[in-house]
Amino acid sequence: MAVNSNTVRVALMPGDDIGPEVTEACLAVLEPLARRHDLGLRFDTLRAGAMAYRDTGSAMDEETFKRAEAADAILLGAMGWPGIRYPDGTEIAPQLDLRFRLGLYAGVRPIRALPGVPAVLADPRAAGIDLVILRESTEGLFAARGRGEVIDDREARDTMVITRATTERLSDFAFGLARRRAAQRGRRGLVTLVDKANVFTGFAFMRKVFHEVAARHPDVEAAHHYIDAMALDMVRRPWDFDVLPTENMFGDILSDLGAGLVGGMGFAPSADLGERHAVFQPSHGTAPDIAGKGLANPTAMLLSAAMMLDWLACRGAGAGWAEAAAELQAAIDAAFAGGLRTPDIAGSAGTSDAVKAVIGHLGSAA
Amino acid sequence: MAVNSNTVRVALMPGDDIGPEVTEACLAVLEPLARRHDLGLRFDTLRAGAMAYRDTGSAMDEETFKRAEAADAILLGAMGWPGIRYPDGTEIAPQLDLRFRLGLYAGVRPIRALPGVPAVLADPRAAGIDLVILRESTEGLFAARGRGEVIDDREARDTMVITRATTERLSDFAFGLARRRAAQRGRRGLVTLVDKANVFTGFAFMRKVFHEVAARHPDVEAAHHYIDAMALDMVRRPWDFDVLPTENMFGDILSDLGAGLVGGMGFAPSADLGERHAVFQPSHGTAPDIAGKGLANPTAMLLSAAMMLDWLACRGAGAGWAEAAAELQAAIDAAFAGGLRTPDIAGSAGTSDAVKAVIGHLGSAA
Ligand SMILES: CC(C)[C@H](C(=O)O)[C@@H](O)C(=O)O
Ligand SMILES: CC(C)[C@H](C(=O)O)[C@@H](O)C(=O)O
Repeated sequence: MAVNSNTVRVALMPGDDIGPEVTEACLAVLEPLARRHDLGLRFDTLRAGAMAYRDTGSAMDEETFKRAEAADAILLGAMGWPGIRYPDGTEIAPQLDLRFRLGLYAGVRPIRALPGVPAVLADPRAAGIDLVILRESTEGLFAARGRGEVIDDREARDTMVITRATTERLSDFAFGLARRRAAQRGRRGLVTLVDKANVFTGFAFMRKVFHEVAARHPDVEAAHHYIDAMALDMVRRPWDFDVLPTENMFGDILSDLGAGLVGGMGFAPSADLGERHAVFQPSHGTAPDIAGKGLANPTAMLLSAAMMLDWLACRGAGAGWAEAAAELQAAIDAAFAGGLRTPDIAGSAGTSDAVKAVIGHLGSAA
Repeated sequence: MAVNSNTVRVALMPGDDIGPEVTEACLAVLEPLARRHDLGLRFDTLRAGAMAYRDTGSAMDEETFKRAEAADAILLGAMGWPGIRYPDGTEIAPQLDLRFRLGLYAGVRPIRALPGVPAVLADPRAAGIDLVILRESTEGLFAARGRGEVIDDREARDTMVITRATTERLSDFAFGLARRRAAQRGRRGLVTLVDKANVFTGFAFMRKVFHEVAARHPDVEAAHHYIDAMALDMVRRPWDFDVLPTENMFGDILSDLGAGLVGGMGFAPSADLGERHAVFQPSHGTAPDIAGKGLANPTAMLLSAAMMLDWLACRGAGAGWAEAAAELQAAIDAAFAGGLRTPDIAGSAGTSDAVKAVIGHLGSAA
């Protein structure tokens, strides 16, 4: 399924709390960007999330799911709300349903130090952090979602599942991504599987399959690392890593840890990719404490939108899309390099200030 | 079982590679310390680890296990070796067997910034990092150790188990520890369960049981936090936390991450405590790359020994033991405050230099 550049249809799910705010900010930037590059971008706004669940009894109804499934890409704000839970106590997270139902096995979570954003690590090399956590997003421990059991209020069990098929696809994706990053951005071309193969059968299996796939990509360096050692190295020498495929739960942990190193969740975009579908979403939550105050940092959402444009370009939407993606990314960098400071990094620029700063750098920075 | 202060018997397992080196360093410090405080400390040196496995076919034979079990405490160096694995590919880790067989559910892993050790985080508050990861060490995902299955080379399964009994004990332990830290060291008395209750049945169960126990400890503040948010907060504001009980796998990850914040594994002691038994061990591995060169940093081992003396004091070994524990801890702090810099923190002090520096501060610093 190739994308037709004249009529790219994006399913837009603003979600809850700051979700709609960062979505609106994102649209405000995408609008002039699309005009500049003559992108035929159409949005289909859909309701999903905790408020939808509260009002309709469904976090994402079938009609909504079908429309999202039919779109060329799905762009999410943020979903969930502390006070609203499913009857079993778990979180309203339609994004998890989308990952599972659309087979979005490749959770791409770039961790990149933006110029100007104050470093969290003391080591000056932290300015060079540029890695991607590749979180498997359809199985692993999350295979137990909705399937765990509690026996007699005495013992609970959740089963982690790792399959050959998904590990092969994830590994292939990782090598392709590393190759592309080497070609386009001069990265070193290194794929490091993060596992716990020294203790678990499932991870020993994952490592075996990973190295089988690695043998088919001799141009890219392949390595593996234990999750505990990786957590340590994320704070000791994150600049030494490139692409890090890993199990779902491990990827959830490492991607938030990584976000912490480059300014927090406000700077953490994500793309959940499958063979035919893709969801783009800032990794942050709904932040009820700051909702409605115009304080939300829209950067993660903007970076997610840049990933979407890039993905659409790769899917055949055409050259203008790739240029728009690069320009958006460059404008975000330029805005922070030029002094933009959002409240989450001790600045005072609100959502609309950030939007203005990024729009102001469109074109000039590309 | 109370400990008799005149005849405390410690099972000593130096282990592999740098294990024996840091063990020797530890004994060199414990010897004058025991003399100063008149401690009746006797060591029973036992063989276990990867080399034992290579030479005898058993990483820790039954006779060795029985002698360790009969001791008042067990002190380990480091075990394992990259090239030596069990037939199923998993690591030679008798320390895991000890945790499971002796029911050492409370894995105490203090993360404390030592004065003088260069900070990894840019924020000056990092000098105040002082928290404890309390890693449950007998179940959780590790319950799958040796029990995972691979079906048809196609799919692997490992089951995480969380029980009410262990969660209750772990939680009780956490509140007691926080209370003690508040009384002795002015910490704020905060216990934060780290889980993923928004997705997993087992973690929702763990959280429920934790709060039942919390209700019995109204003098200590109880909170919970998601593992992904916690990984983020470990780099954003670790100084805000105190005692962090969590599941086995999560605790493994968080404790290494925490170690990274305070200088690395060379500064990370641990105690695995059960109702009657206790293992003390530096959290680092066997570091084959630096073994035999006199470069190993013995600090984690010394801090582990200080935890052992303190635990023995609490078990009835008497006042001299508590004083010796405090004196050892203070001497380590004083040595680093006084300029000791080991190779892992870009210094040049070898193992014996570190030993000398710490011995030099015994007494003077207490
Ligand atoms: C909301 C939550 C269930 C979700 C997850 O754990 O996958 C989130 O943390 C994420 O990383 O997208
Ligand atoms: C050696 C390894 C199996 C062990 C573990 O994961 O428990 C180690 O990492 C630890 O933290 O003690």
